[in-house]
Amino acid sequence: MSTATPASDPLHPVLAALETPAALVEMERVRRNLARVSTYAAAHGLAWRPHAKTHKSRRFAGMQMQAGAVGLTVATLAEAEELGAIAGDLLLAYPPLGEARLRRLVELPARRLAVMLDSAEALAGVAEAARAAGREVEVVVEVDAGMGRLGVDVPAAAVALARGTVDAGLPFRGVGFYPGHVRSRLAEQRGQLRAVSARLGAVREALAAAGLPPAVVSGGSTPTLWCSHEIDGLTEIRPGTSIFNDRSTALVGACAADELAYTVLATVVSTAVPGQAVVDAGSKALGREEAPLGAAGFGALLERPEVTVRALSEEHGTLDLSQTDWRPRVGERVRIVPNHVCISVNLQEGLWLLEEGADAEWSPVSARHRLRRPPTAG
Amino acid sequence: MSTATPASDPLHPVLAALETPAALVEMERVRRNLARVSTYAAAHGLAWRPHAKTHKSRRFAGMQMQAGAVGLTVATLAEAEELGAIAGDLLLAYPPLGEARLRRLVELPARRLAVMLDSAEALAGVAEAARAAGREVEVVVEVDAGMGRLGVDVPAAAVALARGTVDAGLPFRGVGFYPGHVRSRLAEQRGQLRAVSARLGAVREALAAAGLPPAVVSGGSTPTLWCSHEIDGLTEIRPGTSIFNDRSTALVGACAADELAYTVLATVVSTAVPGQAVVDAGSKALGREEAPLGAAGFGALLERPEVTVRALSEEHGTLDLSQTDWRPRVGERVRIVPNHVCISVNLQEGLWLLEEGADAEWSPVSARHRLRRPPTAG
Repeated sequence: MSTATPASDPLHPVLAALETPAALVEMERVRRNLARVSTYAAAHGLAWRPHAKTHKSRRFAGMQMQAGAVGLTVATLAEAEELGAIAGDLLLAYPPLGEARLRRLVELPARRLAVMLDSAEALAGVAEAARAAGREVEVVVEVDAGMGRLGVDVPAAAVALARGTVDAGLPFRGVGFYPGHVRSRLAEQRGQLRAVSARLGAVREALAAAGLPPAVVSGGSTPTLWCSHEIDGLTEIRPGTSIFNDRSTALVGACAADELAYTVLATVVSTAVPGQAVVDAGSKALGREEAPLGAAGFGALLERPEVTVRALSEEHGTLDLSQTDWRPRVGERVRIVPNHVCISVNLQEGLWLLEEGADAEWSPVSARHRLRRPPTAG
Repeated sequence: MSTATPASDPLHPVLAALETPAALVEMERVRRNLARVSTYAAAHGLAWRPHAKTHKSRRFAGMQMQAGAVGLTVATLAEAEELGAIAGDLLLAYPPLGEARLRRLVELPARRLAVMLDSAEALAGVAEAARAAGREVEVVVEVDAGMGRLGVDVPAAAVALARGTVDAGLPFRGVGFYPGHVRSRLAEQRGQLRAVSARLGAVREALAAAGLPPAVVSGGSTPTLWCSHEIDGLTEIRPGTSIFNDRSTALVGACAADELAYTVLATVVSTAVPGQAVVDAGSKALGREEAPLGAAGFGALLERPEVTVRALSEEHGTLDLSQTDWRPRVGERVRIVPNHVCISVNLQEGLWLLEEGADAEWSPVSARHRLRRPPTAG
């Protein structure tokens, strides 16, 4: 298909034909985003194990492996089951508690498998399930790097779990963490990452002193991605968002405007209330996620970032027109960059893949379910 | 199945067998909730047209019709397609913009069909599609009752749309509104609802003076549900949440604790960080929705409402233990009442229906998709 308008333009014939709200992915930007991470990881000697929670899709898992990922990180068993055959090497970065989850874990098709955990209870469950199934499951001990969500924060606790792992007959791979508390601009991250390094350093020293030095130190998020090499001893990064990026990533400076690969196409459905326009992408399409650094709104227009999504209802997004002279008409289409892409993707049945000069291709978000298979056809 | 523990107890064998996170619905509470609304509506001479966005399910649509609903309200075409055969009488409370949506609208199986809209553009589209399909579509003109989201706020604009409806050959049914700005406690709603009555009164007068008196005045939400009879001239209520209720509904006093029919069963996956416990229900299971009236947290435990969900990640909910002596162990299960049930239901593939003395039954959330049918099997 040949056209004068660029593919990003809502007037482009490919976009005009889609029913809204529709999630769009610009594939050329995805390829560039993946190449950028791959190059960075290689330059700093870091293994790249992207988190698949962002896309939950075979298509993008395959692209990540082709671009040089050593394997994938997953959060749910459904992600692991759907993507294990593609990656072959999976890290479940989530404590697998409960019989059903443990059974699914040891039945995964992945060639190589590890889990991240922070408790003796989780370790005991994994050890028992692995033994019963005759399946090797490596263990990564989760360390709290300052976020205060998961992870042991006392070096002795990390040593106890590492020793427990070995005692249970499981391979101890190393330590992992998630620096989710670091959401500042790149230039201001250094101090926070020094504190992360200090916490990790104490754990690594204690492990080494106990004769259990970690072969892998796995961490990293998209906001901290480009400063990963400043974290002492890091061997592996696990960014998720960076494949698509989002408004939060742009606001902290971890991506440029032309690296925003994911948007939600929406139609203006009302301009009845002055000073605003209402579109058909609400919290059930964008997700209600706050922006970092005190920025307002739940998203912003791709082509007019000064226009933010001021309010959300389930099927309504209210565009704030106070910073623009633009006045859309009912029926006009816009593209919205959500604050947090992982949440928005999880709300979609599928994504429309855009390639210059081609029709949009539908790609299912095939791992957004949770159960292995629905009890009924439903 | 006979057991000593009540069905609401996470130790109940039926609950212990489910993989978490799992959305649970107590059916006896649903039946009571429906009977309560039905009785209230009948007592005040109001038609009851519940909003199906809350459950998006055939099962619950059927229960609503059996309990005395005159028809259903829907927000999306998928809801209309999935539930039209059950209800027979549908109000699409959303402006249908765009060719695809209009085509789906006029092809709906419902016996009786109306749309709510607030613009000449939306009206023109509906009129053209109805004419082309030879399908009768009634029009409800949306009025802004003070929320400032959708709806005309000048009586003359309502008259113009009503006249435009008649001129286009479509039946003008009346006016509709959504008092989404009223989120105060029941006892404090009176003043706000007087303002709603005043806005509606001006519109009704102008329409009557123009010879277009509205046969229907349709409004209402769950927080304002039990004060609906205080809105002058109201003929129809469209509550959604009231079938299940949620923490927000309880906080404003529009439901009692034993009317909370929906919860998310979750497993404690970490207690490594002191003062908190992390469960496996995060923003991808509960939804990140703020509580009304300045209340903290994104949800609270059913059996311990003083324990709130302080923070959410995608797959993590952090329970605040500062107001309790209870200290859960890793692997323990809890039931969480989300702040906003409609958002949580939309995140589920299906709901587990609980009946005393029976196994849990799986019920698919069959209208959470958007497209009529996926372009590929996916």
